[in-house]
Amino acid sequence: MHRVVIVGAGFGGLAAARALRDAPVHVDLIDANNYHLFQPLLYQVATAGLDGDDVAYAVRGIFRRQRNVTVHLGRVAAADLDARTVTVERAGAAPSTLAYDSLVVAAGAVSTTYGVPGVAEHAIALKDLDDAVALRRAVLERFERAAVDHGMLARRSLDVVVCGGGPTGVETAGAMMELFTKVLAKDFRDLDVASVQVTVVEAAPRLLGMFGPASSERARRTLERRGVVVRLGVGVDRVSADGHGDHRVELTDGTSLPAGVVVWAAGVRASPLAQALGVELGRGGRIVVGDDLSVPGHPEVFAVGDVAASRTAGEDAPLPQVAQPAIQGGRHAARQIVRRLKGRGSEPFSYHDKGSMATIGRHDAVAEFPRRWLGVQRLSGFVGWLAWLGLHIVYLIGFRNRANVLVNWAWNYLTFDRASRILPSGGPSDVD
Amino acid sequence: MHRVVIVGAGFGGLAAARALRDAPVHVDLIDANNYHLFQPLLYQVATAGLDGDDVAYAVRGIFRRQRNVTVHLGRVAAADLDARTVTVERAGAAPSTLAYDSLVVAAGAVSTTYGVPGVAEHAIALKDLDDAVALRRAVLERFERAAVDHGMLARRSLDVVVCGGGPTGVETAGAMMELFTKVLAKDFRDLDVASVQVTVVEAAPRLLGMFGPASSERARRTLERRGVVVRLGVGVDRVSADGHGDHRVELTDGTSLPAGVVVWAAGVRASPLAQALGVELGRGGRIVVGDDLSVPGHPEVFAVGDVAASRTAGEDAPLPQVAQPAIQGGRHAARQIVRRLKGRGSEPFSYHDKGSMATIGRHDAVAEFPRRWLGVQRLSGFVGWLAWLGLHIVYLIGFRNRANVLVNWAWNYLTFDRASRILPSGGPSDVD
Repeated sequence: MHRVVIVGAGFGGLAAARALRDAPVHVDLIDANNYHLFQPLLYQVATAGLDGDDVAYAVRGIFRRQRNVTVHLGRVAAADLDARTVTVERAGAAPSTLAYDSLVVAAGAVSTTYGVPGVAEHAIALKDLDDAVALRRAVLERFERAAVDHGMLARRSLDVVVCGGGPTGVETAGAMMELFTKVLAKDFRDLDVASVQVTVVEAAPRLLGMFGPASSERARRTLERRGVVVRLGVGVDRVSADGHGDHRVELTDGTSLPAGVVVWAAGVRASPLAQALGVELGRGGRIVVGDDLSVPGHPEVFAVGDVAASRTAGEDAPLPQVAQPAIQGGRHAARQIVRRLKGRGSEPFSYHDKGSMATIGRHDAVAEFPRRWLGVQRLSGFVGWLAWLGLHIVYLIGFRNRANVLVNWAWNYLTFDRASRILPSGGPSDVD
Repeated sequence: MHRVVIVGAGFGGLAAARALRDAPVHVDLIDANNYHLFQPLLYQVATAGLDGDDVAYAVRGIFRRQRNVTVHLGRVAAADLDARTVTVERAGAAPSTLAYDSLVVAAGAVSTTYGVPGVAEHAIALKDLDDAVALRRAVLERFERAAVDHGMLARRSLDVVVCGGGPTGVETAGAMMELFTKVLAKDFRDLDVASVQVTVVEAAPRLLGMFGPASSERARRTLERRGVVVRLGVGVDRVSADGHGDHRVELTDGTSLPAGVVVWAAGVRASPLAQALGVELGRGGRIVVGDDLSVPGHPEVFAVGDVAASRTAGEDAPLPQVAQPAIQGGRHAARQIVRRLKGRGSEPFSYHDKGSMATIGRHDAVAEFPRRWLGVQRLSGFVGWLAWLGLHIVYLIGFRNRANVLVNWAWNYLTFDRASRILPSGGPSDVD
C-alpha cells in the first residue's frame, strides 16, 4: 500500500487527508495537537466571545469513518527526504520514525518577532489556542485587579496595544474594544472602563494591506468610531517592562505607548520544520515549491499552506497565508498523489481566489471579491458582516462546533454578554 | 447601609445574594474563582461530554443587573467574628479587610483523603473545574500514548479506578465507561478498548448510600451490565505509583487493582475556612449552626451549604452536602438578615426535600422522591434519566449555558461523539 504521510492537521493537511478518502493509499496524519484549530475565529476566543472548544475539533473524530487514516499525536521536528522518513516526537516516549512514499508538508506558520526586542518576553501572540486563552486570561485578570486597585486605570495598566494591522490585528482590536465597552463596563460598574484605550499599531500606511484602499479606510474609520486608536506608518522598536507588571511599546517615531497587555499580531513565518528539511526557502522561511506544489528535486514531497511559498503557476507573488490557499493546496497535492499512482503526470496548481474578509467588531466587516459577484465587488458594514457570518458558518459545516458557535454568537449578539470569560485557577485543587 | 459579606459563589452564596436583591443592604460576594460552578455536571466535563465553560458562569455576569452586589475575586482565609471583618487574599495584591454587619459563610467543601496514603500524590479529585479538566486530560493522554505503545493495554495502564460509590463516583464511572466504549473505541480503532477496565470501589455494602436499597441495586446492575466492575464492602488502603507512571490501588481485603488513572470521589470535608473561624465544628469539619442557621453566639453569622452541619430544626441528621440544602439554606439566611433589619426574630430552618437523582450513563438514572409524586416515589431507567435531564435543564435556566449544554447533549446522544476531547498543550506558544 502506498504510504502518505501528512504533517499538520490544519486546513491544508485536513483537506489533503480528506481528498485521499477513496484513494488506494494509507495516510498517516501527524499533528502536535489532538485537534484541528479553526484559526480564523481564534480572536473570538481571545476576546471571550467563544469557548476554546468551539474552534477546536478532535482530529480523531474527523477521521473516525475514514478507515485509511491513522492519526498521530506528535511533533515532526525533522525529515530525511532521501531516506523518505519523518521523525515523530511524542510526549513521554522515544522519537519514532515513519516511512512514506509521498509526503505532504502542511506544518503551517508560527508567530515571528522579526527580531524586535522584548516581544518574546512581554507580548502575547495569537496563533494557537493556548495563546488565545492566555490573552483572555491576561485581560480579565487585570480587570479583576483593577477592581480593587483603581490606580491601575490612571497608570494605563488596562490599556491594550495590538501590534499589527492585518486581519488578525484589526479583528482582535475591534472585538477587544467591544468586550470592554459592551461587557466589562457592565461587569465592573465602579471602573471607568470608557477610559481604557485599545491601540492598533501598523508600520504600513494603511490597515488590511491585502485589501483595497477603500476597505482599509473603511476599517480605520470604523475602528476609530468605536474608540480604537489607530497608529499608521509607525513600527514597533521594542517592548519593555516597567517593573510593575506593565509594559511600554516603544515606536519607531520616538513615542511610546503604555500597556497592560501587548498583543503581537505583526507577522508569521513558516514552521521551523521548513528549515529542518534542508530545502530551498523563500521569504518568511516558506518552502519554495514547483508549479505542482512539489519540492524541486523531490516530486514525492508536497508543501502546502502557510509553510509553502505556493503560487498559481506562472504568477510571481506567493499566495497569502490564509485558509483558502491551504485548503486548495492540500486538495491539489492529494490529487497529484493519486495521478502519479495511476502513472499520470502532475498538473500545475491554479488558485481560485474566493475573496477576503475581515470583521471590525459587532455587525461590521469588509469583504472583497476578485470579480463582481451579484453585481458587487466589495461589501462593508452590516451586509459585509452578514456575508462574513454566513461564510464562516458554511466553513464550519461538518464540524459539530457550528451549533455551539451559533448559540454563542446569537447570545452575545442579543445580550451584549460574553459567556466565556471564566478564569480557571490553572491547576487541579489540593485534596485536603 | 447594612453590609452583608457572603463568602462563596456556589449554590448557597448565590442563592443568598439573589434573595437579597430588594433588601436595603449592600452585599460583598467573594469567591476564589470568577465563576459559579454547576458542580452536579462536573463529571461530564471530566468525561469529555461537556466543555468547562458549559458548567461555569461568570459571577459578575450573574449580578450585572443587581446593583447592591459587589463581586470580589479572592480567597477568604480568615475572619474575625468579634471585629466583624473578613480577610481577602487576592493574587498579586496585599490581603485586604472587609467589614460586615451580617456574614454568610457559604465556602463549600473540599475533597478529603481521609488520611489514605498516596491519594494526594496519585489520585485526581473531582471537586473543581481544574480537577475535571485534569482528569479528562490524564485519560486522553494515556490513550494517545497507548496508540503507539500497545503494551500499555496489557500493563492495564489505561484502566481507571474510581474510589467512592456515591453519586459522583457512580456518575463518573458510568460516563467514563461510555466514553471508552462509545467514543474512544472508534477513535482508537487499533486498540482493544473493550479490554480496558473501569472499577468502582466502595467501602459500604452498597452504592449510592443516600438512596434506598432498590436504587442502589439498580445502579450496581446497570453499571455491571455496561462493563464497570463494582467492588463493594472494601476500602482503599493506599494508592501507590509503580514507577512507570502507573498506579496501584491497594484495598483493605489485601487485593490490589492496577490503574493508569485513579479518581478520588470518596468524600469531602468542609472548607478549611470553617476551622479558621474558631467556632464549633461537627463531623467532617462542618460548622455547627443553630436552628436558624446562625453560628451559636454570633446571631449575625450564618453558615449554609456544604460548609455547615445544617439540619431541619428538631432533626438530628445533618443535611447531605448537595445543591438543594445549600440553595434553601442561602435563601433562609438572606431572609433572616432582612427580618432582623425589620426588628423581627429569626425563624427556624426547615428543609424541603425534593428528592435525589444520579445518572448511570447513557439514558439511565435513578431518582427518588420523599413522597409519592404523580403516583411514584422512585424512577429508574430511561424515565429516570429523562427526569434527571429535565431537572438539570430547569436548574440551569437563567444561565445561558443551558443552550450550549443542550446542544452538546443532543449531539452526544445522537452521534455517540464527544466534542470536548481536545488537549490544549498547556501553555502559550513560543514566538519564534
